[in-house]
Amino acid sequence: MSHNTFGHLFRVTTWGESHGPALGCVVDGCPPGLRLSAADIQHWLDRRKPGTSRFVTQRREADEVKILSGVFEDDRTEGPRTTGTPISLLIENTDQRSKDYGEIRDRYRPGHADLTYQAKYGLRDYRGGGRSSARETAARVAAGAVARTVLGVGVSIKGALIQIGDQKIDRNAWDWNETEKNPFWCPDVAMAKHWEAYLDAVRKAGSSVGAVIEIVASGVPIGLGAPIYGKLDSDLALALMSINAVKGVEIGDGFASASATGESNADALRMGNDGKPVFLSNHAGGILGGISTGQDIVVRFAVKPTSSILTPVPSVTMDGSDVDVRTVGRHDPCVGIRAAPVGEAMVACVLADHLLRHRGQIGKS
Amino acid sequence: MSHNTFGHLFRVTTWGESHGPALGCVVDGCPPGLRLSAADIQHWLDRRKPGTSRFVTQRREADEVKILSGVFEDDRTEGPRTTGTPISLLIENTDQRSKDYGEIRDRYRPGHADLTYQAKYGLRDYRGGGRSSARETAARVAAGAVARTVLGVGVSIKGALIQIGDQKIDRNAWDWNETEKNPFWCPDVAMAKHWEAYLDAVRKAGSSVGAVIEIVASGVPIGLGAPIYGKLDSDLALALMSINAVKGVEIGDGFASASATGESNADALRMGNDGKPVFLSNHAGGILGGISTGQDIVVRFAVKPTSSILTPVPSVTMDGSDVDVRTVGRHDPCVGIRAAPVGEAMVACVLADHLLRHRGQIGKS
Amino acid sequence: MSHNTFGHLFRVTTWGESHGPALGCVVDGCPPGLRLSAADIQHWLDRRKPGTSRFVTQRREADEVKILSGVFEDDRTEGPRTTGTPISLLIENTDQRSKDYGEIRDRYRPGHADLTYQAKYGLRDYRGGGRSSARETAARVAAGAVARTVLGVGVSIKGALIQIGDQKIDRNAWDWNETEKNPFWCPDVAMAKHWEAYLDAVRKAGSSVGAVIEIVASGVPIGLGAPIYGKLDSDLALALMSINAVKGVEIGDGFASASATGESNADALRMGNDGKPVFLSNHAGGILGGISTGQDIVVRFAVKPTSSILTPVPSVTMDGSDVDVRTVGRHDPCVGIRAAPVGEAMVACVLADHLLRHRGQIGKS
Amino acid sequence: MSHNTFGHLFRVTTWGESHGPALGCVVDGCPPGLRLSAADIQHWLDRRKPGTSRFVTQRREADEVKILSGVFEDDRTEGPRTTGTPISLLIENTDQRSKDYGEIRDRYRPGHADLTYQAKYGLRDYRGGGRSSARETAARVAAGAVARTVLGVGVSIKGALIQIGDQKIDRNAWDWNETEKNPFWCPDVAMAKHWEAYLDAVRKAGSSVGAVIEIVASGVPIGLGAPIYGKLDSDLALALMSINAVKGVEIGDGFASASATGESNADALRMGNDGKPVFLSNHAGGILGGISTGQDIVVRFAVKPTSSILTPVPSVTMDGSDVDVRTVGRHDPCVGIRAAPVGEAMVACVLADHLLRHRGQIGKS
Repeated sequence: MSHNTFGHLFRVTTWGESHGPALGCVVDGCPPGLRLSAADIQHWLDRRKPGTSRFVTQRREADEVKILSGVFEDDRTEGPRTTGTPISLLIENTDQRSKDYGEIRDRYRPGHADLTYQAKYGLRDYRGGGRSSARETAARVAAGAVARTVLGVGVSIKGALIQIGDQKIDRNAWDWNETEKNPFWCPDVAMAKHWEAYLDAVRKAGSSVGAVIEIVASGVPIGLGAPIYGKLDSDLALALMSINAVKGVEIGDGFASASATGESNADALRMGNDGKPVFLSNHAGGILGGISTGQDIVVRFAVKPTSSILTPVPSVTMDGSDVDVRTVGRHDPCVGIRAAPVGEAMVACVLADHLLRHRGQIGKS
Repeated sequence: MSHNTFGHLFRVTTWGESHGPALGCVVDGCPPGLRLSAADIQHWLDRRKPGTSRFVTQRREADEVKILSGVFEDDRTEGPRTTGTPISLLIENTDQRSKDYGEIRDRYRPGHADLTYQAKYGLRDYRGGGRSSARETAARVAAGAVARTVLGVGVSIKGALIQIGDQKIDRNAWDWNETEKNPFWCPDVAMAKHWEAYLDAVRKAGSSVGAVIEIVASGVPIGLGAPIYGKLDSDLALALMSINAVKGVEIGDGFASASATGESNADALRMGNDGKPVFLSNHAGGILGGISTGQDIVVRFAVKPTSSILTPVPSVTMDGSDVDVRTVGRHDPCVGIRAAPVGEAMVACVLADHLLRHRGQIGKS
Repeated sequence: MSHNTFGHLFRVTTWGESHGPALGCVVDGCPPGLRLSAADIQHWLDRRKPGTSRFVTQRREADEVKILSGVFEDDRTEGPRTTGTPISLLIENTDQRSKDYGEIRDRYRPGHADLTYQAKYGLRDYRGGGRSSARETAARVAAGAVARTVLGVGVSIKGALIQIGDQKIDRNAWDWNETEKNPFWCPDVAMAKHWEAYLDAVRKAGSSVGAVIEIVASGVPIGLGAPIYGKLDSDLALALMSINAVKGVEIGDGFASASATGESNADALRMGNDGKPVFLSNHAGGILGGISTGQDIVVRFAVKPTSSILTPVPSVTMDGSDVDVRTVGRHDPCVGIRAAPVGEAMVACVLADHLLRHRGQIGKS
Repeated sequence: MSHNTFGHLFRVTTWGESHGPALGCVVDGCPPGLRLSAADIQHWLDRRKPGTSRFVTQRREADEVKILSGVFEDDRTEGPRTTGTPISLLIENTDQRSKDYGEIRDRYRPGHADLTYQAKYGLRDYRGGGRSSARETAARVAAGAVARTVLGVGVSIKGALIQIGDQKIDRNAWDWNETEKNPFWCPDVAMAKHWEAYLDAVRKAGSSVGAVIEIVASGVPIGLGAPIYGKLDSDLALALMSINAVKGVEIGDGFASASATGESNADALRMGNDGKPVFLSNHAGGILGGISTGQDIVVRFAVKPTSSILTPVPSVTMDGSDVDVRTVGRHDPCVGIRAAPVGEAMVACVLADHLLRHRGQIGKS
């Protein structure tokens, strides 16, 4: 119900603004007895951190996470473990430079939430976008790290950029190892090289471009999800669409399946050598009738180009005058790049929640 | 939380299987004093009804709705009105022909939920797909009719098919009036004509195709939605992805925005003659930062081709043998056609819920 | 969130008014594979049914339940079983006699919800109290029957009246077998006899009295519930206080524990012969820190006297005149009598929900 | 759903343990534009603070609250205001003395949650009771302060102790002003004096006693609440029963109404001079049919005696030996004393939530 909580049994409540003292989240419903330290979470936060390459914002944030509750190190156990009570995670804001944002106080930046926040709430924290800042996604990544612990090592969730602007990767060149080697989470080594020059040009022009991110979850057991309003794909769509700047979500073949025929779209089945049914393809993206099939879960989401650009865009001021807005400052030329770890985290949270919900109703884990 | 409820203040709980005695829903949280009769709801159900053209299933269902609670006709008021208590809606199943479905008892139809339901629950109602039947969407349309009453006449929600298979409409030929004149909710009169022959061929070949549906909501006030996890676009994605066979959802320019630049994607603002800001374009689809801008809300969703086709598809039986499944019977060659009224209904429900949530927090309607 | 739903994983949504065509509920989240027939539910409904003795309302309702969805009888299984999809239960209203209620249209009955419904909603279904009728509790009992199936035969939930008016039972005379033998669910055979004469006098005087009901749940495993806001006792208090006319709820020693000392209130522990801790008393009522201890769960609730009495009570009319209201018709002299099966049902629903929630988080059933 | 969240539109999520670095809560759904500073919240926290008299624990906690998000001081407005985004509140733990608790690591304190936490979660933070510590209630009081801001100055919520052990106040001597003048929130000046000696004796004996607290909310508008499962009294019962050590909750005449007759329990109505109905008594405690009547809302709750006492109580150790547990340290002889501000806070939160829910459904504030 809440506007800042998601999940049902594995629940995440986030809070915090770009320029407040800190941001964070409360993860509730985590099973007890799982090993969890701040370092386990920090590992994932460091992947999202600003300032790691010239292609992302140069804002310098340590993004150091503290665990304030919900874990306990007993001298009878090895290392801190979850206790089953709410896990409060806090990340301080250290590099705020509020002077950068002074001039946007009185005007609405096109493509941003300035106008709608002001219209809805009658006031807004205009410093760095306030609540709508991309900084909020740090809390998602922290929560996703806890979710991964719930899912266990058998489930792997990886993200890749498959398109920046109109430049798409060659899927035949896909190599997951490459995603950790370039600043774009790009699985196509040649395209990663190409994107460097491409994005440099975009950045120098003071422009921006969008992106498409693909997340693949492997090792997800068959049976997670539920019919109708508890569909796994519905909850994935909700979770991914909630990320800043996302404008589309698709599962498996997605929009391309509209053009397919029943024959070409069918994922045929055959009995495998181990006596279990085996799918011969995965157009469905690992979900049938809202429930996981045991195949890889494949989701993609589209991120719009950063709205903060050097080119002036017509807009209006709060007192009703026309104005042209031109944004200088520390902005990502493609916010999609840092969205890959965020997308992974959201998928992890959805899967952890459905794992707990499944065993709640069915009684098996 | 529930697997069969959605919404927060305007809440819909659905129930029912394809071949049970009835299906229906409970609409809770509806404001009191609104005029609502069964005929008001029936109007919208008739638009989704099977058997209305040769392009949809020939199953004959009256789909007659009964209101069992939540409305009251006082002799001091004119006509029945909502009382603020839960509205229970019931639609009887009248044309069940369970013999048609006998042979699928022991096998998994590819592309259907048969395998995943069996794996999750250990049993399934195999008659007509049980809970995963498209019949369930009748309850959504009924609930959507109530939602429209909540939104009032100032809000208009219309759906159109813009693509069947690989045949896309000409957006320059868009005429909303046409959508009510052809069996496809097609806004392009020429393409509607073309689709007749196209779909006849698909149907005769025992094949099927997918579709893309666009829903446009006009008159939505600025300010509905909320940041982060209560985003209007997130809830729309959840709602539309929960419809059977949907594989993708996008808002505004959607996936195309990934290829755009910040300049081309920007929706510029200027002061209007009435002293209010006016958007010069609507790439955002009427939502910024999760909150409605007052422009048209534009969403699209992709429906996969019907999995029930005459062409045999390799599959397996429950006892572990390979089998080829070929589906005869009364199936839609393109389930996307009947999805347009369903998509409208889901958008109506999401908007009604956010209208109530907005005035709950903000105190204005 | 919803005003007519309770529970989280085992969820019940109720609907219906006293004088509409029917009332019912949707039970969502029920585990699959459980045997469940209408007769299983009817057994419990018959215990609550009006007209079974001269001490309860003479309204004649068959209270026959129909299962509209969520169960399926496969010829491979014996008898109908739950499928894991929502179970829709419907009970028709057959004895409505709306003429009885005509005169209350324009006046507010003291002690009833007439005034508050009118003030809140601006209109009300005044026939038989509409939504606030005790008939609504039939849906609770039906849902409770499903909950008992979830809990299994190892958990027993029994209710008893321990006080009617100011006449309290002798707890030393407690015999559970007696509760099924008298019309009061009274465990004290002597007091049951006494109550007959006592209540006859109350009824003849056109008066009414209140009651206290005690519910005991045995066989509840240790570990159900959760700290702070998911406490088992909190949810029991919510559930029991939601029953019509209930004004108080207590757990274990309840209000008496306020007068106790730490020494007298302590439930001491000793190791049992089976190597498990054994409590030497149960002042806590089977719950510590919001979590079940494995002992009997003991809750009590107080029901106010029926507000519908023959003695005139000063009130006002809708158009603002003073009036004296005197209620004739088919009313229970003590609504607490029929509350015992309702209280049992609510406890069953809470326990079933917590059982599923527990195994969701912890992974064991 | 969550185990540590309550409320629907006005939602509170709490976290934190007795001996972790901090505790706190996230208040989500707060209307925007309300003036709110840390000092506004601190005022209420100071009333609950430990160490304020010899009758409460001598643990020394500053209980200084920090607002980490959700308020913003714009130079166009006077003072910080809520922005409509989640308000994160943090209170550091400063006086932890974990050495005090070392010996309870291996044994279960009778009357505490030690055994049930261990049984449920398989481990527990035994330092100071961990999550079950009374320190958690500081977060409730902080949230309640925000709720009071939502309710506005027209609504007053006051608490009083009316019984400590078996010593009850004289209700005829009730003076609200007295509650702020003695360390017991006692409205009866004579009884407050008496309790000093009484409690000194209890404390010196190493014993403890329970208490009954009454909370009165004045100025609550008519119409808050909802029928059946959204009853205002149900939510009050849930909220109050969730406070540590509470064993019973009652509304209005509560358990005493069981002994009443319909005539004596009836709250008669007459037209007032202002043309509005006036109640002539308030046995109902301000709630009819789950909805506020506009009268004072009157609730009471019973708190059991502190389980931590000097007298040895038989118990067991984690490794299965019998042991006698005697608790030394800084404990309240009557935890009910500090429960009054906590009860007020919980009532405030429930009322704020229902205020928002009401105007969400009805459209008026």
